[in-house]
Amino acid sequence: MLKGLLSVLLVLAALSSAMGKPEKTTPKEKKEKRIPQTLSRGWGDQLIWAQTYEEALFWSRSKNKPLMVIFHLEDCPHSQSLKKAFAEDKDIQKLVDEEFVILNLVYETTDKHLSPDGQYVPRILFVDPSMTVRADITGRYSNRMYAYEPADMKLLLSNMQRALKFLKTEL
Amino acid sequence: MLKGLLSVLLVLAALSSAMGKPEKTTPKEKKEKRIPQTLSRGWGDQLIWAQTYEEALFWSRSKNKPLMVIFHLEDCPHSQSLKKAFAEDKDIQKLVDEEFVILNLVYETTDKHLSPDGQYVPRILFVDPSMTVRADITGRYSNRMYAYEPADMKLLLSNMQRALKFLKTEL
Repeated sequence: MLKGLLSVLLVLAALSSAMGKPEKTTPKEKKEKRIPQTLSRGWGDQLIWAQTYEEALFWSRSKNKPLMVIFHLEDCPHSQSLKKAFAEDKDIQKLVDEEFVILNLVYETTDKHLSPDGQYVPRILFVDPSMTVRADITGRYSNRMYAYEPADMKLLLSNMQRALKFLKTEL
Repeated sequence: MLKGLLSVLLVLAALSSAMGKPEKTTPKEKKEKRIPQTLSRGWGDQLIWAQTYEEALFWSRSKNKPLMVIFHLEDCPHSQSLKKAFAEDKDIQKLVDEEFVILNLVYETTDKHLSPDGQYVPRILFVDPSMTVRADITGRYSNRMYAYEPADMKLLLSNMQRALKFLKTEL
């Protein structure tokens, strides 16, 4: 995990530097047919994704389902490997589909509750239908409490079940 | 336009009623393969869409390009017909691609500046890179100032050019 942080920071630095530049497109690039962007961004094409945090909160309250928010970056190798594991894990995909409202974001929201220990990627936060961020549902890394790695899918699944359990006992 | 309002309201009412219900899926529905949702939602698959308003504002400032926000609903016939005209208009698609940051939303944001005369669909707002909503760039309907119909594509194009002109003269 630790050795990965530097590369994540480098990616973030590269990204923010790229974002600051005016867009440069060559005539060749313009002619190429683009692949339509999906809301899933590869995290599960068969899931129904919320587009924005406001929309996700609305669905969470309406359906009384916990919300799962994935922060990631398309060019970040740690995000990519987590995405692959997440999308290929049938148990997780099934449980998300049946019991969760789901949102993935590549841009931070203005809500600081969604970054209890800072803004980094990848990280996964749970929010219950009463709109409380479940800062107590964490991964296994003390320096980045909401980070998961591909090997952590069982922990993530068990955290999802905890989010559902809270729902039944606390609401 | 006026005769259309009732049906828009009916669609909104039906939608909010549907949203309030718990999700019902039959085993048959679950087995059907879903088509991945796109960020474009049919408004131009070849455009690069922002996902959220915060992200769109960030890109608008970074690239010094005006932002165009389309509010619509998937089940609204007026939104659908406007979408078709918008997606098929090559001049508009080209100008958006080259000079605008673009966002389409099916869920309202918390920013009231984006609904100067109320929340209705479809409506199109322009925001300049200084984050000012251009409430002065309107369509042709006095009762719904930011509404456009499929026949209004030339007006929309000229409004887009106005948004670009402001940019050069005022910043």
